[in-house]
Amino acid sequence: MRVLGVDPGLTRCGVGVVEGVAGRQLTMAGVGVIRTPAEAEVPDRLVLIERGLEEWLEIHRPEAVAVERVFTQHNVRTVMGTAQASAVAMLCAARRGLPVALHTPSEVKAAVTGSGRAEKAQVGAMVTRVLRLAAPPKPADAADALALAICHIWRGPAHNRLQQAAARHSSSAPRTPHRNRTQHQKGTVR
Amino acid sequence: MRVLGVDPGLTRCGVGVVEGVAGRQLTMAGVGVIRTPAEAEVPDRLVLIERGLEEWLEIHRPEAVAVERVFTQHNVRTVMGTAQASAVAMLCAARRGLPVALHTPSEVKAAVTGSGRAEKAQVGAMVTRVLRLAAPPKPADAADALALAICHIWRGPAHNRLQQAAARHSSSAPRTPHRNRTQHQKGTVR
Repeated sequence: MRVLGVDPGLTRCGVGVVEGVAGRQLTMAGVGVIRTPAEAEVPDRLVLIERGLEEWLEIHRPEAVAVERVFTQHNVRTVMGTAQASAVAMLCAARRGLPVALHTPSEVKAAVTGSGRAEKAQVGAMVTRVLRLAAPPKPADAADALALAICHIWRGPAHNRLQQAAARHSSSAPRTPHRNRTQHQKGTVR
Repeated sequence: MRVLGVDPGLTRCGVGVVEGVAGRQLTMAGVGVIRTPAEAEVPDRLVLIERGLEEWLEIHRPEAVAVERVFTQHNVRTVMGTAQASAVAMLCAARRGLPVALHTPSEVKAAVTGSGRAEKAQVGAMVTRVLRLAAPPKPADAADALALAICHIWRGPAHNRLQQAAARHSSSAPRTPHRNRTQHQKGTVR
């Protein structure tokens, strides 16, 4: 399975592609950051992010896209830009018919480090170890994008089993494909 | 001047096209609402909004797009959807090289009714009168989209004069075209 992780942001949008399946060695297919100039207008910055993401999707052809879920509780000044960049990421993926999964920062930290409250450096160190990289990817947005992709691959199978079990105990067949289920999860459920 | 006003929303995205110049009779070229099913996933809803907006841009060929500025202070549950829909609107416009202006709800109300605290019904009534419509456009999102377009046309010339005056008193020429100026305005300034 090849997953593109996207850590959305207007100034720096982290992107990372991870390949593999849960329980086996994962490999990094690519990592980077899409940057847009702070002095540019938001609409133009969104166009640059769209172009950047389209290139990554075109080159790496992922089977799924994992985007960090944005919360409004955080910094009010930056949350709008993050929400806008994540909207572009979701749009680019869905336009290609790719499943989109949203994972909260704590879900990603918990999946990668074992603790939902892990520090940035800890996430970077675990990403480095899991993907057998020479050094932690920089900036942090790039490492976070890889962590999102890892989280998506690792959470996938267990998640699918849970959903299948739920479906067996339900009278009706599940109406929604994998991405929908993932996206409907509330952070509080886990 | 032909302006497409967009009142962003995931469930109902109001769109309205107004033609004319400030000081003359304005005419409505079209009004409508792009709807997406609440049970659909956000990425798919954004794709539907993009398709809808592309149709409006393709058919009406506006020279500018006016989008309601989203604030995070409002309802936290709905603000993310509004921010995401507005991101798609900005993206669609900027991709075509169209200038994008963001106007706050109070700027729109003030421009159209004379009061920044006008009620929805008052805005609808003024839009009906200004555009000489038979009845107020429904739903309110459609009327709001027309109000945005009217606001953009009416604020334009005065706004330009202000900017030109400011430029004359400044040592350097203004670096940004019209849309940038409009977008940099803070709601608190006016």
